[in-house]
Amino acid sequence: MCTLSLRTHPHALTMLRLLLLVLLSFYLSEGFPGAPEMMKEERQHEDEGTLQLRLEPSAFGSLWPLPQSVRLSPEVYLLCPTTFQIVHGTHSTAGPACAILQDAFRRYYEYVFSYSKWNEIPEQSSADGQLLQLEVTITEADPECDHYPRITSDESYQLIVEENVAVLNAKTVWGALRGLETFSQLINEDEFGAFQINKSEIKDFPRFAHRGILIDTSRHYLPLRTIFLNLDAMAFNKFNVLHWHIVDDQSFPYQSVFFPELSNKGAYQPYTHVYTPVDVRLVIEYARFRGIRVVPEFDTPGHTESWGKGQKDLLTPCYKENVPTGTFGPINPIVNTTYEFMAKFFQEISNAFPDAYIHLGGDEVDFSCWKTNPDIIKFMEERSFGTDYSKLESFYIQQILDIVSSVNKGYMIWQEVFDNGVKIKQDTVVEVWKGSRCNEELQNVTAAGFKTILAAPWYLDIISYGQDWQRYYKVEPLCFNGTEEQKRLVIGGEACLWGEFVDATNLTPRLWPRASAVGERLWSSKDVTQLGDAYSRLTAHRCRMVRRGIAAEPLYIGSCDHEYNGN
Amino acid sequence: MCTLSLRTHPHALTMLRLLLLVLLSFYLSEGFPGAPEMMKEERQHEDEGTLQLRLEPSAFGSLWPLPQSVRLSPEVYLLCPTTFQIVHGTHSTAGPACAILQDAFRRYYEYVFSYSKWNEIPEQSSADGQLLQLEVTITEADPECDHYPRITSDESYQLIVEENVAVLNAKTVWGALRGLETFSQLINEDEFGAFQINKSEIKDFPRFAHRGILIDTSRHYLPLRTIFLNLDAMAFNKFNVLHWHIVDDQSFPYQSVFFPELSNKGAYQPYTHVYTPVDVRLVIEYARFRGIRVVPEFDTPGHTESWGKGQKDLLTPCYKENVPTGTFGPINPIVNTTYEFMAKFFQEISNAFPDAYIHLGGDEVDFSCWKTNPDIIKFMEERSFGTDYSKLESFYIQQILDIVSSVNKGYMIWQEVFDNGVKIKQDTVVEVWKGSRCNEELQNVTAAGFKTILAAPWYLDIISYGQDWQRYYKVEPLCFNGTEEQKRLVIGGEACLWGEFVDATNLTPRLWPRASAVGERLWSSKDVTQLGDAYSRLTAHRCRMVRRGIAAEPLYIGSCDHEYNGN
Repeated sequence: MCTLSLRTHPHALTMLRLLLLVLLSFYLSEGFPGAPEMMKEERQHEDEGTLQLRLEPSAFGSLWPLPQSVRLSPEVYLLCPTTFQIVHGTHSTAGPACAILQDAFRRYYEYVFSYSKWNEIPEQSSADGQLLQLEVTITEADPECDHYPRITSDESYQLIVEENVAVLNAKTVWGALRGLETFSQLINEDEFGAFQINKSEIKDFPRFAHRGILIDTSRHYLPLRTIFLNLDAMAFNKFNVLHWHIVDDQSFPYQSVFFPELSNKGAYQPYTHVYTPVDVRLVIEYARFRGIRVVPEFDTPGHTESWGKGQKDLLTPCYKENVPTGTFGPINPIVNTTYEFMAKFFQEISNAFPDAYIHLGGDEVDFSCWKTNPDIIKFMEERSFGTDYSKLESFYIQQILDIVSSVNKGYMIWQEVFDNGVKIKQDTVVEVWKGSRCNEELQNVTAAGFKTILAAPWYLDIISYGQDWQRYYKVEPLCFNGTEEQKRLVIGGEACLWGEFVDATNLTPRLWPRASAVGERLWSSKDVTQLGDAYSRLTAHRCRMVRRGIAAEPLYIGSCDHEYNGN
Repeated sequence: MCTLSLRTHPHALTMLRLLLLVLLSFYLSEGFPGAPEMMKEERQHEDEGTLQLRLEPSAFGSLWPLPQSVRLSPEVYLLCPTTFQIVHGTHSTAGPACAILQDAFRRYYEYVFSYSKWNEIPEQSSADGQLLQLEVTITEADPECDHYPRITSDESYQLIVEENVAVLNAKTVWGALRGLETFSQLINEDEFGAFQINKSEIKDFPRFAHRGILIDTSRHYLPLRTIFLNLDAMAFNKFNVLHWHIVDDQSFPYQSVFFPELSNKGAYQPYTHVYTPVDVRLVIEYARFRGIRVVPEFDTPGHTESWGKGQKDLLTPCYKENVPTGTFGPINPIVNTTYEFMAKFFQEISNAFPDAYIHLGGDEVDFSCWKTNPDIIKFMEERSFGTDYSKLESFYIQQILDIVSSVNKGYMIWQEVFDNGVKIKQDTVVEVWKGSRCNEELQNVTAAGFKTILAAPWYLDIISYGQDWQRYYKVEPLCFNGTEEQKRLVIGGEACLWGEFVDATNLTPRLWPRASAVGERLWSSKDVTQLGDAYSRLTAHRCRMVRRGIAAEPLYIGSCDHEYNGN
């Protein structure tokens, strides 16, 4: 129990609070004030285009991504860990039976209170400026407790922190999850180990509906633990899509029920380096509890070398001077067995992954093998494709899209499929990965009336020295020329961490907090662009991630109260 | 107990062994054979100057760094974990009282046997092709069990693996430690979980005596656990110097006995972000047990901002238009109190750190503050230094060197001290950090008769996309123009991981296995330059480090039998 103590003398407390607010701001800013200003590093130059920023406290504390509307008052309330409660509001359509919320209440209680600096309960009168509970109220008739998050899910929420009771209102559980994260970011520990929160009012919603992280489990296998940790980190940054690039040329770790030989032969190892059906369900459920969709990518007809090991005749045999070389190219698009296989395979996938979308890839198809194969050459002639192999690619893709449509799934595709003029459904999401900022591809895709997401400027596997988060942060997805209607078709973006040089040893520090910059760009208002303020908030946010067990790397010199000690 | 089984049928076993040797080579090579050859990555281009290498088994298995002389025979012996022993040779001058060896025997037994693939003891006749024990014999009268390693320590060893008994001979414990690492690298687990080793003969010694890793605990504090893990990794790569850049502008985590205010005021936090005297001794002892020297760096007169917080009047007050600005520059070189402080401080340091050398820094001194200070201007006039502030720097450094000499320590310095013509002792080691490969600095330093170590091409904090280990590997430290005598003065090099962007979250994967490339360059023969062979061995060596708990990042696509699961 938290009880009355010396510190509750009214005037002393008020003064102390103001002082603490200032001190706290510095504390949150990682490192001691003034350090960076004297720094001179001839040894190592920052990348061009990134700034040497000064750490100054942000008026918005450590909020990340910044909510759409924030009002913080200097008035401060204390929270007592032993009595503070997170409860369902009286008029909430959700209650204790709502597992998503129950789990989130427990999780956020732990994030806030489990890391007390001095492991000691601060003493405080319960009558003076305390916050006793957070009431979470879901207002829609269906709170969606048992749903999966969707592209159309409503993530908006409203949070009002006043004396005694804070109120979090959201239409559905998805908004409540985002609001709980924000609530947890408002609570700070002062120097005496007391938990405090400012009086505040927050109205929030995402700027973009699709905010994704791409992980690649083919170039390197990622243990479930690594995936779970990064789903946690995604929730801390309000990301809502795990784009799971699950298989590729190098390995096929997805354990198929219908075609077990795919992973038996195509995984790096058929037992230790696979995702069983249970693993897949665990990932999807872990993600669902954090309001995160799981969109698997089965990239064809290129990027499929590993498929060929366990599925005979699926890949195109390459020839040299009319003799098979023994090597194989992309999926063989001219045989019926290919489409029989794909129909059955995507039937399974559509059941295994509940999301309304499957990513079908379609990027980087190398025509050189197709060009050597006499059967394919004959097929091209018969169909009057001439020597335009992109027509053959389109022929293949078209059938795959039809197969996936027939199992009632929408699809995402890489931009080449659109570029090659394949006929795609109206609800298709085209992912743009080529070109520079404000490029014409977004313009073209949206002019054709398709939804699109931007990945091109956010290939986080491409590392460089210095504060490259700034580059990611400065991207404005809607800077291309286009009508308002076109711009509404840009539904979001993704930070992509391809796996050539990434596995469980370095994924987390390579992804975080660099992806956080993308997270704020996709969530916060367009005019949230002040780098210095972002630096301050992100520095504190990074320390918070570290405290919550995420090995997020430092932005620059400084320290966290709780340094990472996990590896 | 390991007992007779089906597998011991003589002919079957011989054939099986040959097959296993081949299979094993592939296994060790991380990933399945053939994968890289088909890979096509338009998305991500390797850095210029690095090659896309094919993974092919090395004739030298997973040895890293490659010993000076290796003879591996196809004959294979099995090891039985329950009965295998590492023992002191009958004629060894060291015995069970030699703590360094006892600890190393236990450690290497664990490295070899603790990670059995199937956690099952393979069955095998004890009469047929088994290796029963490793005998370690120290030949010098003083095995140096209770010494600290020195720059002159003899690290050579000879290892002969024959049926029943393997023999490791070394003059001192330091060579035995290196030989034990090599022995452990010769042992592989086959597909049945059996431990095996080839008949072999190895004669080995380092090419360079000083093989260092620089860590920086000022820009970010590193927990002891991180330092210990990296001392482990250093031993796996036969590094022998921890260059501990312990304090700098940003923070002063070294807890001084004479001047406790230095860390009380200058550390990021005076309790959680400091190295106590006990911590320092633990690091030194942990390093000693692995044959690693600990050379602390106390860099002055620049890089000292954090010193000023806890030691009044140590730094130079800066002026603007003859008025003090309240900011401070380098150490104040014109007041006696500075030298009184330094004398007492280095007295303490010389006791706290047993190594014969202290690194005194001396790099990157910014004269701008000195130039504003009227007292310093006056001092310059009195000494007839004109406006040449490097003379003032030399004046300061000279006194510091004399102080350190008076406490019977040698010193290492950054190249500027030499460049500025400061009078340095004959045993000084000049560390070269500027310039490109084959630069003139090594030529100049050695022409003046001084020992030198090379760091310039190995600033590992400068990251880039792709296989940059190749760049580090291709450096030839002696490619400058100079006599044989000059080249003998190049006693080694260091891989430097400055801490601006590095803390406990990312230090290990950023350092390993990139530093391993430097490790082989400094240990192995000059003619060990075959990149493809290095790639194969290093890939396997990296997986071994992961298995031993080091979060060493992947070189490229592929997998390890035991993926990292620690964070």
